[in-house]
Amino acid sequence: MDKTDAKIPTRVLPGFMELLPAEQIVLNSMFDTIRRIYEQYGFVPIDTPVIERAEVLFAKVGGETAKQVYRFTKGDNDLALRFDLTVPLARYVAEHAVELTFPFRRYHLGKVYRGESPQKGRYREFYQCDIDIIGNGSLSLMNDAEIPRVIYDVFTALNIGPFVVRLSNRKLITGLMESLGISELAVEAMRVIDKFEKVGETDTRQMLVELGIVDALIAEVFGFLAINGQTQEVIGKLKALSVDNQVFQLGIAELEEVIKLLASLGMPEDSYGIDLTIARGLDYYTGTVYETVLKDNPKIGSICSGGRFDNLAEKYTVRKLPGVGISIGLTRLFSQLKDAGLLKIGASTPTKVLIASLLRDPSVSLEIATMLRTAGIPVEIYFEEAKVKTKLVYANRLGIPFVIFVGEDEIRSGLFTVKNMGTGEQVAIAKAELSSYIGKEVHY
Amino acid sequence: MDKTDAKIPTRVLPGFMELLPAEQIVLNSMFDTIRRIYEQYGFVPIDTPVIERAEVLFAKVGGETAKQVYRFTKGDNDLALRFDLTVPLARYVAEHAVELTFPFRRYHLGKVYRGESPQKGRYREFYQCDIDIIGNGSLSLMNDAEIPRVIYDVFTALNIGPFVVRLSNRKLITGLMESLGISELAVEAMRVIDKFEKVGETDTRQMLVELGIVDALIAEVFGFLAINGQTQEVIGKLKALSVDNQVFQLGIAELEEVIKLLASLGMPEDSYGIDLTIARGLDYYTGTVYETVLKDNPKIGSICSGGRFDNLAEKYTVRKLPGVGISIGLTRLFSQLKDAGLLKIGASTPTKVLIASLLRDPSVSLEIATMLRTAGIPVEIYFEEAKVKTKLVYANRLGIPFVIFVGEDEIRSGLFTVKNMGTGEQVAIAKAELSSYIGKEVHY
Repeated sequence: MDKTDAKIPTRVLPGFMELLPAEQIVLNSMFDTIRRIYEQYGFVPIDTPVIERAEVLFAKVGGETAKQVYRFTKGDNDLALRFDLTVPLARYVAEHAVELTFPFRRYHLGKVYRGESPQKGRYREFYQCDIDIIGNGSLSLMNDAEIPRVIYDVFTALNIGPFVVRLSNRKLITGLMESLGISELAVEAMRVIDKFEKVGETDTRQMLVELGIVDALIAEVFGFLAINGQTQEVIGKLKALSVDNQVFQLGIAELEEVIKLLASLGMPEDSYGIDLTIARGLDYYTGTVYETVLKDNPKIGSICSGGRFDNLAEKYTVRKLPGVGISIGLTRLFSQLKDAGLLKIGASTPTKVLIASLLRDPSVSLEIATMLRTAGIPVEIYFEEAKVKTKLVYANRLGIPFVIFVGEDEIRSGLFTVKNMGTGEQVAIAKAELSSYIGKEVHY
Repeated sequence: MDKTDAKIPTRVLPGFMELLPAEQIVLNSMFDTIRRIYEQYGFVPIDTPVIERAEVLFAKVGGETAKQVYRFTKGDNDLALRFDLTVPLARYVAEHAVELTFPFRRYHLGKVYRGESPQKGRYREFYQCDIDIIGNGSLSLMNDAEIPRVIYDVFTALNIGPFVVRLSNRKLITGLMESLGISELAVEAMRVIDKFEKVGETDTRQMLVELGIVDALIAEVFGFLAINGQTQEVIGKLKALSVDNQVFQLGIAELEEVIKLLASLGMPEDSYGIDLTIARGLDYYTGTVYETVLKDNPKIGSICSGGRFDNLAEKYTVRKLPGVGISIGLTRLFSQLKDAGLLKIGASTPTKVLIASLLRDPSVSLEIATMLRTAGIPVEIYFEEAKVKTKLVYANRLGIPFVIFVGEDEIRSGLFTVKNMGTGEQVAIAKAELSSYIGKEVHY
C-alpha cells in the first residue's frame, strides 16, 4: 500500500470510552472488587447477548430511552442492542424459570448502549454492574435491606471516599397522591419529584402546577418532601402526618422495617439515611428505592440506584416475579472520579519484574522468568536489542518495580543484580532466592 | 397488563450463547485463568468499543467476513460491530501510539460479532481472548517463541486434556511459490493449503489445479507438505530440499530459531511440533503461524491460532508496526468442550454457606453472615419464610456445601449446627469458631 495514502481516522466515536492501560488497570480492579463483593453475598453470574430481538427490548422501554436504542436488521431479524441489564434479566428469568432456583440472586457486569446526545458524563456505551434478587411469587422485605449492605461493602472496598445510601419507599408518594385524590397523576408527579434535588423548589412547583395539581395539594406534597432528619425522626414525622391511606401507611411500615434491618446488618449510621425526594424516574419501582451519593462530591449525583419492583417479567411470562436490585453505572462513575482527581492511577502493566539480558543467548533469562512465573510473579523479558538505558526507560515508563540483570558476571557468580526502580537501590541475589526476594517486595 | 396477553418469545437468537449459572461459573473461571496467565507474562489489558466506525472495520476485512459484519446507521454515523479484536487493536495502537510504550504487549478479552449462518459450533456473538506483542519498527523473533509458551501455560492451567501447539512459517510456502515461479498464486494457494488437513489430498490437488498450477509444480508442493516428524527431523528435511530461494531459507532459519527457543522456555517436547500444512487463511500473516489442537479431540480443530505479521496498522498510520499474537475463541471452545463432556460443571452459585434461620428475628443470622463474609467466605441467608426442608432443597439444588442453622437452642448454647451437604454430617460449632471451621473446609 502506498505510504502517502490518506489514513482512516482512529479516534473513538463520541460518547464511547477508551482508556490507556494504566487507567484500564484501575477500572479492571474496580470490576474485580465489585464482583468479589457481589459473590460474597451469593450473587450468581449471568451473561446475556448484547443483541436482543427488538420486540423483546421495545416491550419494556418507552419515552426518551426508546429513541436512544440502537436498532437494525440483519437478514430477516429486527435486532437491537440492550440499553440496560434489567430487560435482559427479565427475559432470562422468563426463559429459564424452570431451570433456575428461586429466590434467584444474580449479578451481571456488562456493556449497554444508548444513543444519547454526547455530553460530559453521558456515554453511548457504558458498563453496568447490577445485582437483583428475584422471588417466585413473593420476596421477603429483608432482601430490601440486604441490597444497601452489599453496596456499603462495595463502596467501602472501592475506597473512593465517604458515601451515603439514601432510601425512600415509593408507596409513600403513591399513597399520598391517592389520599389527595390525584392518583392518576402519581406516575408523572413521581418523575417531577425525582428531579426535585436537581432543579429546586420553584421549578418543581411550576412542573406540578403544569400537571394540573392545585396549590393546596402542592402544599401537601411540599410538606411531605420537607420532612428530613435522622431516620427515626423521619419515621416519626411520617407517622405524625396521619395520612389516611393504606398504601402510605404500608410505605411507612416497610421503610421502618428496612431501616431496622440495616442496623442489624451492621451498617454504620452515617452510611445511610431516608430521603423522601427520591422517587426514581422509572415506572416499575413499587416499594423501596435507593440512591447513593459521595458525601464530598454530591455534584456527581447518584452513583448507584435501584429499588423494589412487583413484577419483573410480565411481558414475557405469566409467572409473578417480584424483585429488588441496584445498578452501578461504572463507566460514568469512573469518568467522574477521574475528572475529580479521585483515582489513584498507577502502573501501566501488571508486570512486577523486567528481565534485562546483556547476552545474546536468552536461555538463562528464560529460565529465571519461568521460575518467577511459577511462583505467581508477573514477569517479562525485554527481548529487543537495546542499550541497558533503553530497557530501564521502558521499565520506568510502564511502572515496573524491579529489573533483574542477566549478564556474564551474574551467570558466573550465580548472583543476579536486582534493581529497585522506585529507590534506585541494587542488590545481588542468588538465583534460587529471586522468587522469595521479589515475592516479599511486591504485592501481586 | 392482561394476564391473557400473548407473551413475547424469550429464546435467545440462533447463533447466540446463553448459559445457566453453573455453566457460566465454569466459563468465568476459564476467563480468570486465561487472564491470570496473560498477566503473568506482562500482557496489559485494553478494552475497546464494540461499535466502530464502519470505515475502520471495512478497511481491514474482505471476502466472507465482510458479508457477515453487523452494519447499521444511527443518526449520521455509519457504524459496525467489531468482528475480531485485531482490527480494534490496530486502530487503538495507531490512535494512542505516542502514549504507548513499545514493544506493546496487550491482552483483550471481549465479544465479537459475525452474522454467520447458524450451525453447530458457529456463533454470531463470541468471546475472543487475544494476546499480541507489537513492536515499533521491528520486533525480535524471541517473541514468536514466547507466544506458544504462554498458550502452553494457559491450556495446562485450564486442564482440558493434552494438547499440542503446531507451528509453521509462512515464508516457507511464500518462498516455495516464488521458487516455482508462481508467487502471484501464493495467497490463494495458502488458503487452499490451510484446508489440507480437513479436506485431504485429492480435494487439495483439485483446488490447486483450479488455481492453474500445473501437475509438476503441485508435486513439488505435495513433496513439501508431506514433510513431517520430530522438529529437528523436519528442519533437516527442509534444508535438504535445497530450495534456491532467500525467503524460503529465511523461513527455515526463523522456524529453527523459534524451535530452539521453545526448548529454552521449558516447553515439554510433546507439547509442540512443526506442521507444514498450517498456513492460516488470513492474508496478513508473514512469518511464524500457530494452531493448537487437543490430542484426544482433534476433531474440535484448532482451539487457538495466530501468527506473525509485518505491519498491523498500515491503513491507519504511517508507523510500521510488526507484531505476533494468538487468539483463543473461548465461546466455541467452551461449547465444544461441553459437547465432548470435558467440562466439570459444579455448583450453581459462589455461595459456600447458607444460613437457615428458624426465628423471625434475623439479627443473629445477619451477624453471623457478616462475620463469615469479613473472613472472605461467600454466604447467603435464606430470607423467605419456608420449612427447613425447603431451605435444604434450595442449598442442595444450588450446590451450596454448608448450611448453618440459627435457632433458639443455638443462640442459648452459643453452639451452631453446621450441616455438610455433601456428607450429611452435622457438627456443633461455637460462633467465634465458625469462620475458621468453614474456612478450612471450603476453597473460595
